[in-house]
Amino acid sequence: MLRPKADALLLALDFAGTFLFAIEGGMAAARGHLDLLGAAVLAFATALGGGIIRDVLIGAIPPNSIRDWRYASIAFAGAATAFFFHSVVQELPASLLVLLDAAGLSLFAVAGAEKALNFEIHPLIAILMGGITGVGGGTIRDLLLAQVPTVLRADVYATAALAGAAVVVLGLKMKLPRAPVAIAGAIVCFFLRMVSVWLHWNLPKVGG
Amino acid sequence: MLRPKADALLLALDFAGTFLFAIEGGMAAARGHLDLLGAAVLAFATALGGGIIRDVLIGAIPPNSIRDWRYASIAFAGAATAFFFHSVVQELPASLLVLLDAAGLSLFAVAGAEKALNFEIHPLIAILMGGITGVGGGTIRDLLLAQVPTVLRADVYATAALAGAAVVVLGLKMKLPRAPVAIAGAIVCFFLRMVSVWLHWNLPKVGG
Amino acid sequence: MLRPKADALLLALDFAGTFLFAIEGGMAAARGHLDLLGAAVLAFATALGGGIIRDVLIGAIPPNSIRDWRYASIAFAGAATAFFFHSVVQELPASLLVLLDAAGLSLFAVAGAEKALNFEIHPLIAILMGGITGVGGGTIRDLLLAQVPTVLRADVYATAALAGAAVVVLGLKMKLPRAPVAIAGAIVCFFLRMVSVWLHWNLPKVGG
Repeated sequence: MLRPKADALLLALDFAGTFLFAIEGGMAAARGHLDLLGAAVLAFATALGGGIIRDVLIGAIPPNSIRDWRYASIAFAGAATAFFFHSVVQELPASLLVLLDAAGLSLFAVAGAEKALNFEIHPLIAILMGGITGVGGGTIRDLLLAQVPTVLRADVYATAALAGAAVVVLGLKMKLPRAPVAIAGAIVCFFLRMVSVWLHWNLPKVGG
Repeated sequence: MLRPKADALLLALDFAGTFLFAIEGGMAAARGHLDLLGAAVLAFATALGGGIIRDVLIGAIPPNSIRDWRYASIAFAGAATAFFFHSVVQELPASLLVLLDAAGLSLFAVAGAEKALNFEIHPLIAILMGGITGVGGGTIRDLLLAQVPTVLRADVYATAALAGAAVVVLGLKMKLPRAPVAIAGAIVCFFLRMVSVWLHWNLPKVGG
Repeated sequence: MLRPKADALLLALDFAGTFLFAIEGGMAAARGHLDLLGAAVLAFATALGGGIIRDVLIGAIPPNSIRDWRYASIAFAGAATAFFFHSVVQELPASLLVLLDAAGLSLFAVAGAEKALNFEIHPLIAILMGGITGVGGGTIRDLLLAQVPTVLRADVYATAALAGAAVVVLGLKMKLPRAPVAIAGAIVCFFLRMVSVWLHWNLPKVGG
């Protein structure tokens, strides 16, 4: 999907998001007292699971991260980082981790929505695909740890991903230029997520 | 797969089943004290998860509910109904909900088996695909709630779906006309399910 | 993927591995006090889940076990065996079960890696596909039982599958003859697994 050269920056950002989410997966393995292999599995699932689900659903098979070996390598590098520098990573301030996670979420949501549109998926479904790209990996990670996925319980997280994806889909459907649209979508997702964390926003509960 | 016009009724029934299963997903979200987004996720998974698994397995990619935006819209309408009319839905008699659920199960099992045959899947596997279409969504919903899927524990549920699918596959393989075969399959599934509920039937346990 | 005649032995071994893993799935159903349908579901998932995930990811759709009805039949035969001869199977010495499981793991890991290479998947990813083929089914089974997959917790299990797959990928990339390479990969996986059980090997824990 990525045009060589022109999209070198986008690819770099995609790799950065993969690495970050992989570190989160590796840290979840640490909290669950798993071994190095478990860290690699959770890093792979967290970083690449959302994109794999999206690719299977939109018909981009084999998925990007199976086709291109660099994604898995970066995921395992993230796992190794979380494993061998565990005490360092754990010392990072929580607010920095939330901020980096929001950055990764934004990137994945924007890239997921754009890729779905490239595969001629209906705009409404393309927004969903952006959301799934953003939160799918964390959901698989939580399932593997036999936990109710935080996306089902938590504050504005998937909602931020969907909002960012919606901006991208609307902008591209209005034939606006690609780069500003992607940046606007990422900013919307990022700020919605960060503001909701700072203000402890939550969506209303069913029956509540 | 659906021929225009001729299958308008079948499409309407498919949409009805989707809406019903989506309401069930939304109600599961209510029981788990999830927010509106969680209700939408569970409604989507419950209503469309079984068909998506079937479509990926038989090679109908992108799956029907990704290709056609109306399925997701109906699923979200079901989630919104369960969310905003929660107290009304909760007042419905349990026997009505079981009956509607059995109707949805029958429809999905029949449609799933027929679609698999259309994709030239072996009859035995087509029966399985009917069963997966019927119970796959509820299974994903239960997994997302970190529960052992009720299909593994419960009384005659998947068995009814498989029986209905088997009737469809046998009938179509015997070149019987399509509409009566589908109706017969749905009736077998529906009554097997309802009778099992009324009589508290259960399959024998392993080692029991 | 299998060439007729020449690969009759490989096919027989694949069926044997399927049957064995299906019995394990059926036994897990017994431990969870599930019914016959539950045993069939867990047997199917355990025996065929890993291969199905691999096939979807590498683009071999419909997956082998959906395309060829014999796999599902063998899985259900395994479920029935575990169900109806439950007391006999339970009497088998644990060491025999571990040995048979290691044999199945070896076979699946080797076959999975080789198939991924046949689909022109990058060697690194082909090794992963071998590992997923070996452990994916058991992981789905554990998820269905709402348990943290043993592959995340346990001793050298996925690692053995990955090692066997790596031998196959390296050997085939070095243009070594296919049969000895497959046998070498299976032996590496089998012995690594058995030795780790005997010596109670475990990988180091994150942060441990």
